[in-house]
Amino acid sequence: MTTPGGSTAAAWRDGWRRLPASDLSAYLRVHTTADAHALAGDDVSDAVPTLLLPSPGKVICCGLNYGDHIAETGRERPTYPTLFAKFADTLIGPDDTIDLPADVETDWEAELAVVVGAELRNATQTEAQAGIAGYTIANDISIRDWQRRTLQWFQGKAWDATTPLGPVLVTPDEIDPKDGVEVVCRVNGIERQRGNTRTLVFDCPALLSYISTFTTLRPGDVVLTGTPGGVGMAMDPPTYLTGGDTVETEIDGIGMLTNHIRTGA
Amino acid sequence: MTTPGGSTAAAWRDGWRRLPASDLSAYLRVHTTADAHALAGDDVSDAVPTLLLPSPGKVICCGLNYGDHIAETGRERPTYPTLFAKFADTLIGPDDTIDLPADVETDWEAELAVVVGAELRNATQTEAQAGIAGYTIANDISIRDWQRRTLQWFQGKAWDATTPLGPVLVTPDEIDPKDGVEVVCRVNGIERQRGNTRTLVFDCPALLSYISTFTTLRPGDVVLTGTPGGVGMAMDPPTYLTGGDTVETEIDGIGMLTNHIRTGA
Repeated sequence: MTTPGGSTAAAWRDGWRRLPASDLSAYLRVHTTADAHALAGDDVSDAVPTLLLPSPGKVICCGLNYGDHIAETGRERPTYPTLFAKFADTLIGPDDTIDLPADVETDWEAELAVVVGAELRNATQTEAQAGIAGYTIANDISIRDWQRRTLQWFQGKAWDATTPLGPVLVTPDEIDPKDGVEVVCRVNGIERQRGNTRTLVFDCPALLSYISTFTTLRPGDVVLTGTPGGVGMAMDPPTYLTGGDTVETEIDGIGMLTNHIRTGA
Repeated sequence: MTTPGGSTAAAWRDGWRRLPASDLSAYLRVHTTADAHALAGDDVSDAVPTLLLPSPGKVICCGLNYGDHIAETGRERPTYPTLFAKFADTLIGPDDTIDLPADVETDWEAELAVVVGAELRNATQTEAQAGIAGYTIANDISIRDWQRRTLQWFQGKAWDATTPLGPVLVTPDEIDPKDGVEVVCRVNGIERQRGNTRTLVFDCPALLSYISTFTTLRPGDVVLTGTPGGVGMAMDPPTYLTGGDTVETEIDGIGMLTNHIRTGA
């Protein structure tokens, strides 16, 4: 959160209340979301959401995790989650502009993001569920022509300052993706994606448990859970974002990201 | 480097001399390798090389970059570098043991690693060359069955504490991969890989320049330049590492990594 007095983590208790850290990444390295009630300090209701997690140690993404998106890419329902990494440098705030060259194929991918709240290694799904700090929204904006250049998607997924995240973290006592939350993407006001997290092939604890088999997840790490059907490259003809477009990414119970595209800046 | 007095960065000047940082990652965030002569302090010749770069911001790997390895995977010579990421958590020191489950297919990939020495974004190849801090050795130990589980290699490449790096950084005035250095891997004393960096499809400045198109490289970041032919999965029959095996990864002019495999620990 940005306040007139500088950056601070904050918790919502009938208004934003200051937490003892400059941002949520710093907060989660020391505290848990369960501590937030006790630690909430003075009122900072003039706070404005900025990039929720400026310095996660790991950002891991799952591809091909909704049945309809798997179908539109022409692939089979997977046995294992398809995983790739992106850097913290890709992340931007909930209302930030996305600057890109004019000559790349920029696509949208609305996603539920799960934020890790405990150290997880070789975690069972029960342990992984207990280690979830909460949920937020991401849009895994993808540069499709670069993504297709080689077998590995990374270079189409790791462009600096292209992945909006936020606006807030909602804790597991308030939202349960297994019960189903709607993940929606609109481009210039037209709905392009709508999926329900009930239909995820690999749900949040399954993903965290699986990832923890090979690498340690730590508080503040972020896992993007994949995007539902309706991406631009699957439209007929394929349709990409251009300068001046507005992408809205919304999840009931969490909020909305609103990001403008600017090219050739 | 580990010394009786604790961890320190060090420079070689007729013996190891202390540099004003706890390790090379910390040193490169503040200084350059060109400063090392002026900054070299007291003699720490009892220093023992440990993990060269404990906290790089980014570790980016290039696959399919030697003609003979491309051929053994049955693929075409690429137009673009195939890139993927691994985490700093994958890195271990030059003599560290590699602990893995007994039931995975563990393979070797000897590689030249280039260490970034300047901030690079949209860098030309000339700028990228000038932004190289130096070169070191890596072995991109790969869990082949996990790598093959999905389209994306990441989950076979990002196992914690499996990628030895080091033992030292050699600066560009002492070594030039374009002139050709031999990259060698031996398993239990038997040579399995030998490639020459002269034959890289994408050389070091080409890789750094390309990567800098989409993400910012910073001092201390590491780019693995790919492995030559001779990996275990291409043997007939495919041959993987097992507990008790020793992997030696050597580059003339830099040194050697010696890593034992331990399973089921």
